[in-house]
Amino acid sequence: MTNILIIGAGKSTSALVRYLHEKSTELNFEITIADKDLKVAKKAANYSSTSAIELDIFKTEERQAAIKKADLVVSMLPARFHIEVAKDCIAFEKNLATASYVSDEMAALDQEVKAKGLTFMNEIGVDPGIDHMSAMQVIDRIRDEGGKMLLFESFTGGLVAPESDDNLWHYKFTWNPRNVVVAGQGGAAKFIQEGQYKYIPYQRLFRRTEFLEVPGYGRFEGLANRNSLAYRDVYNIKDIPTLYRGTLRRVGFSKAWNVFVQLGMTDDSYTIENSENMTYREFVNSFLPYSPTDSVELKLRHNLKIDQDDLIWDKLLELEIFNNNKVIGLKNATPAQALQKILEDKWTLNADDKDMIVMYHKFGYELDGKKQQIDSTMVSIGEDQTFTAMARTVGLPLGIAVVKMISGEISKPGVLRPIHPEIYNPILKELETYNIKFSETERDYLGYNPDQL
Amino acid sequence: MTNILIIGAGKSTSALVRYLHEKSTELNFEITIADKDLKVAKKAANYSSTSAIELDIFKTEERQAAIKKADLVVSMLPARFHIEVAKDCIAFEKNLATASYVSDEMAALDQEVKAKGLTFMNEIGVDPGIDHMSAMQVIDRIRDEGGKMLLFESFTGGLVAPESDDNLWHYKFTWNPRNVVVAGQGGAAKFIQEGQYKYIPYQRLFRRTEFLEVPGYGRFEGLANRNSLAYRDVYNIKDIPTLYRGTLRRVGFSKAWNVFVQLGMTDDSYTIENSENMTYREFVNSFLPYSPTDSVELKLRHNLKIDQDDLIWDKLLELEIFNNNKVIGLKNATPAQALQKILEDKWTLNADDKDMIVMYHKFGYELDGKKQQIDSTMVSIGEDQTFTAMARTVGLPLGIAVVKMISGEISKPGVLRPIHPEIYNPILKELETYNIKFSETERDYLGYNPDQL
Repeated sequence: MTNILIIGAGKSTSALVRYLHEKSTELNFEITIADKDLKVAKKAANYSSTSAIELDIFKTEERQAAIKKADLVVSMLPARFHIEVAKDCIAFEKNLATASYVSDEMAALDQEVKAKGLTFMNEIGVDPGIDHMSAMQVIDRIRDEGGKMLLFESFTGGLVAPESDDNLWHYKFTWNPRNVVVAGQGGAAKFIQEGQYKYIPYQRLFRRTEFLEVPGYGRFEGLANRNSLAYRDVYNIKDIPTLYRGTLRRVGFSKAWNVFVQLGMTDDSYTIENSENMTYREFVNSFLPYSPTDSVELKLRHNLKIDQDDLIWDKLLELEIFNNNKVIGLKNATPAQALQKILEDKWTLNADDKDMIVMYHKFGYELDGKKQQIDSTMVSIGEDQTFTAMARTVGLPLGIAVVKMISGEISKPGVLRPIHPEIYNPILKELETYNIKFSETERDYLGYNPDQL
Repeated sequence: MTNILIIGAGKSTSALVRYLHEKSTELNFEITIADKDLKVAKKAANYSSTSAIELDIFKTEERQAAIKKADLVVSMLPARFHIEVAKDCIAFEKNLATASYVSDEMAALDQEVKAKGLTFMNEIGVDPGIDHMSAMQVIDRIRDEGGKMLLFESFTGGLVAPESDDNLWHYKFTWNPRNVVVAGQGGAAKFIQEGQYKYIPYQRLFRRTEFLEVPGYGRFEGLANRNSLAYRDVYNIKDIPTLYRGTLRRVGFSKAWNVFVQLGMTDDSYTIENSENMTYREFVNSFLPYSPTDSVELKLRHNLKIDQDDLIWDKLLELEIFNNNKVIGLKNATPAQALQKILEDKWTLNADDKDMIVMYHKFGYELDGKKQQIDSTMVSIGEDQTFTAMARTVGLPLGIAVVKMISGEISKPGVLRPIHPEIYNPILKELETYNIKFSETERDYLGYNPDQL
């Protein structure tokens, strides 16, 4: 029997556990699900091949005992907690898989991991994960054919599925709402377009979108991520003149979201007075000038120059931000926390709602003197609120990698990302059987000029 | 002979040294000016009563030897360097004066200073300094008469004098340019208006100004400072419904400055690529979308919706921000450093230019059932580029305080601000003889409603 230890039984484990269970009879797996809350672990371990244990990862003996018993460890913990697990995996010579970005601490283990012939597979979820694999597959193909990369743009969005899209923002929280509220903060977005470095500060981020059309799913808008330039090294495309990574929303989301940004409602750096008893209307008013007579509505319209017939206004009304009966109800809340509370009233998925993951890559390249472009898109819709698109696109690549690490099909040693053909090819192939697949269209290279699109 | 030691001989010491020299014969002063650069100290010490020494304050023995010899120490060092001087002053029982804000470290010395019967007078320049004194004099008068404070607003600006005001921004650098470029960053401005807490994020700060008229000097605009609420404790006006402190500029400055804020040019948190060889035009372009055909000018106009006939545009042209021959010339510059370079080309004072300090206080109060308002203004114009308005309004209150500390007229022990009548009354009185004086107008209380003005 092969013992797989999954540490952390959050929302995103559902598809991982189901996948591994489906393979358990054929491959002789036993799956142990560990969580600091035994109830949570038990809920996730509802298969014949699974068992649940209580595990506080800060208790060294407990953690090491569990890892010793396993043949392979999957850490589904928040990224900052992986490192202790990783060190134990080196000590007890266990392979490790995570869906998180390789931290500096994790990267520093590479030599030790290699020396022991172990595989620590990271960034093997959706973003990071499927984005890496699907991008590298095309980039390597272009390079293998002798092409030169001119442009790489990549966008991912976690959105509500079209059949559950019933609000004016075309958005619901399908993942951690807090990350959505503070998205884009902490520094300018940096990228490169046709050899020119470009910088977008937070206060302009939601006004500098670009549009993308996904066949069958309509138009989306892409917002720049902060870290595009790091991918020059990761993907080995160091001299590429255009490199841009971003996040997808439905068209019009960002223009309306910019109202919150401009007013200061997304700020997470200080607490507001009396947030517990403050109404939504009072919250909005605290970001507008005092007036003994003018309405909060007119002050907001005037401050941000919102015309009467602008759809933004209907979006704000839909959220009831001017309601003077609804109360924030959070002690010492930051503006961002208060805003999150208001949004959760309206943007929480209903029991029968489905989520959707959308990914869009653009590859520009020159081959045999001809400039060409490949557009590659993937859409995945959740099954339900357990097997969401997010859980499936995180859990399936992770599960497939785990099985292939156990079978020896993936055996490259070191602290890895799935950017090597021997890793991404078999995983992408199996993902297609779960309907997680990319559609490609080829055309002449447009260059980076949205006007020509 | 009384020995006064001045540590730090920067720009702002000119008026201090001249004032103390003028008193030196009558009061038997010897003034020692210490600086880490002996040349700088010698330049400041060009009076018969003054002598210069070289002093590196990080050399403990050197520092302590100089302080031991003095009867009173004035620290003109950057605020973070006062603390070591202050500790020596306690050890050797010397009085101390500074024009800086009381740091937490300095405040922590209060008991020791009191125990030794010493006076450490801080915040005795212009802002902080004259602002405290002039405000507290009126606030105490209102309270002594039995009035109840309803409103306190206070604005200070360091500007160019009207006779030297020859650019469209009506602004030149009269103090540290860097502080001007990054002003307002690092958190929302917080204040209270008619009992309502208000928050302005950086991205709206320059669009939330209010206008103020100074008789004889025309209109100014006030921008919120970050720290208004701290003055509830300092001025003992804890329950005041309106408290707002701000910075003055000429009307129209902020709307144009907001272009730089929105584009991200004031960001000091990251360095831009190739800043050394970048032209002003390329710098501007790095904050705008890439286009193979559209001009930088049109992209900027379109992005920030600047009409062709908007005066903002002329302000931008005046700064030559679109010049493709002028080069930033700074290695690894932040956007803020690059912008400062561009501005210094145009906003540096000419040899015969004069600066101006403007202060405006509004006091609203209720007395005998009647609501009233006092507006109090002060304008000080520099003599030349040595005895600037900034140097005079910093150096004179400091010099007057020093003389009165030596004479014993000011003898209150502790780490102090000039908020006590026995301190501010004689200093303000003497400042009037140097034409640093406030004009008051009284009227019915308007409340906080700019529309009524």
